[in-house]
Amino acid sequence: MIETVATPCFRQTLRVYWEDTDAAGVVFYANYLKFFERARSEWLRSLGFEQQRMLEDTGAMFVVAATTVRYLRPARLDDLLDVTVLLRSAGLASMNIEQQIRRSTTAHDGELLAESTIRIGCVERGTFKPRGIPSEILQTLQ
Amino acid sequence: MIETVATPCFRQTLRVYWEDTDAAGVVFYANYLKFFERARSEWLRSLGFEQQRMLEDTGAMFVVAATTVRYLRPARLDDLLDVTVLLRSAGLASMNIEQQIRRSTTAHDGELLAESTIRIGCVERGTFKPRGIPSEILQTLQ
Amino acid sequence: MIETVATPCFRQTLRVYWEDTDAAGVVFYANYLKFFERARSEWLRSLGFEQQRMLEDTGAMFVVAATTVRYLRPARLDDLLDVTVLLRSAGLASMNIEQQIRRSTTAHDGELLAESTIRIGCVERGTFKPRGIPSEILQTLQ
Amino acid sequence: MIETVATPCFRQTLRVYWEDTDAAGVVFYANYLKFFERARSEWLRSLGFEQQRMLEDTGAMFVVAATTVRYLRPARLDDLLDVTVLLRSAGLASMNIEQQIRRSTTAHDGELLAESTIRIGCVERGTFKPRGIPSEILQTLQ
Repeated sequence: MIETVATPCFRQTLRVYWEDTDAAGVVFYANYLKFFERARSEWLRSLGFEQQRMLEDTGAMFVVAATTVRYLRPARLDDLLDVTVLLRSAGLASMNIEQQIRRSTTAHDGELLAESTIRIGCVERGTFKPRGIPSEILQTLQ
Repeated sequence: MIETVATPCFRQTLRVYWEDTDAAGVVFYANYLKFFERARSEWLRSLGFEQQRMLEDTGAMFVVAATTVRYLRPARLDDLLDVTVLLRSAGLASMNIEQQIRRSTTAHDGELLAESTIRIGCVERGTFKPRGIPSEILQTLQ
Repeated sequence: MIETVATPCFRQTLRVYWEDTDAAGVVFYANYLKFFERARSEWLRSLGFEQQRMLEDTGAMFVVAATTVRYLRPARLDDLLDVTVLLRSAGLASMNIEQQIRRSTTAHDGELLAESTIRIGCVERGTFKPRGIPSEILQTLQ
Repeated sequence: MIETVATPCFRQTLRVYWEDTDAAGVVFYANYLKFFERARSEWLRSLGFEQQRMLEDTGAMFVVAATTVRYLRPARLDDLLDVTVLLRSAGLASMNIEQQIRRSTTAHDGELLAESTIRIGCVERGTFKPRGIPSEILQTLQ
């Protein structure tokens, strides 16, 4: 479902803490969505955009419209993980993003633990009605 | 710190799911605050008050100002727990609540797993400035 | 992606608390995975199986292998939600489950808020190697 | 309750994401316990100890026995926070830690948002029976 990605993409490194794990001794699968989300927030920040300011300035919010996640190998307490963000397409009011989580290594690409496709929509604060992505952000994305 | 409570108090029963546990095989301690909170919300609902409606009607919100929690025994996946709520005192703009979590049993009081004292304040939405508890609620509490 | 489901299915009702919401004023999308998971746990329990006991008795654990979720409408604080579980197929070592979350109403089917397809695998505790679903459970599922 | 701390202490900086907030538009108070916990884990790591390895090598686990938290000002989405760790005392089987969360600033100490006293115990994996802190760690702490 997710093609091999050769182009450069944004990468955030994060640590697994107790809060992320469950009684199976590994990261609780729902928490990978949090890891994907942190990386997307840092990717937007790296482009110059903060979501709290976007909300205050324009009344626009990004919301998650759909997620597809495949869980391949478990992550454990104290693991260091690399989370990537690759923008696949950006339309007027939505974008599609591909993300991977790998065990962080210094040498080469670490083991792939999970991969996802996330569809993001842009909506009006409060009403949640679809609206265009603020033009300044859209220009940067495209 | 918490005296034995003989008076009747509100009780909610809840189940431990995977999301609540951590890699130690037991409920992650921060999640007891969620269990205490669910019981307080149901206690308010049992008195006729919903917090979302209170927020929309009066602009008032309850916020947690201070918590003291003692963790005595671990709870595990699939455990059924009883969470109690005992209002100790209610002032114009705050209240003190004592809560316990016990393993649920049909026969008698189950093992005490955790106990807490929670101080709740009332604030204005948005500004978070202290304000009086809406009078209708305060009258019911007192 | 998800066909209309006409056959009877398991249903759990749950309440939205503060812990479930985010700064957008609605349920944080990752938390729908928790709601889906609670309903699957109660569905298994309704069939006579507890996962903690299954783990202790057989060393087998169910793990989530893949999730596809579509988020249609937001849920809010104090909402009462119905979460359904429909087993689509059960193989020797995995099963596919379809789930929906609707706003709970007494009259008829409430608004559809989110729907998902979840692939569950069965693995050995500790090693996470795939293994057959314990036969007693598999017989009940099939 | 918490004295002014003049001695040097460990400090971790972290970011507030959507997952941390609630419908009040601020960080959900239970999540401060996660922030405190992340900082304690990084503090132990800075001393050369990883909890997963400690667990595997010695069968010992640190557990939270008691928490006292005062919530002073709210943190919001995108805020950068400094979380400190100050070891107040370390006994054979437990330790007391004081922690603060401040808004991160480059110039001077940021606004104090929350402060806590955390009592940590050392227990045997599985049984949760109290036991001595592994001697290598205890020597470093004392």
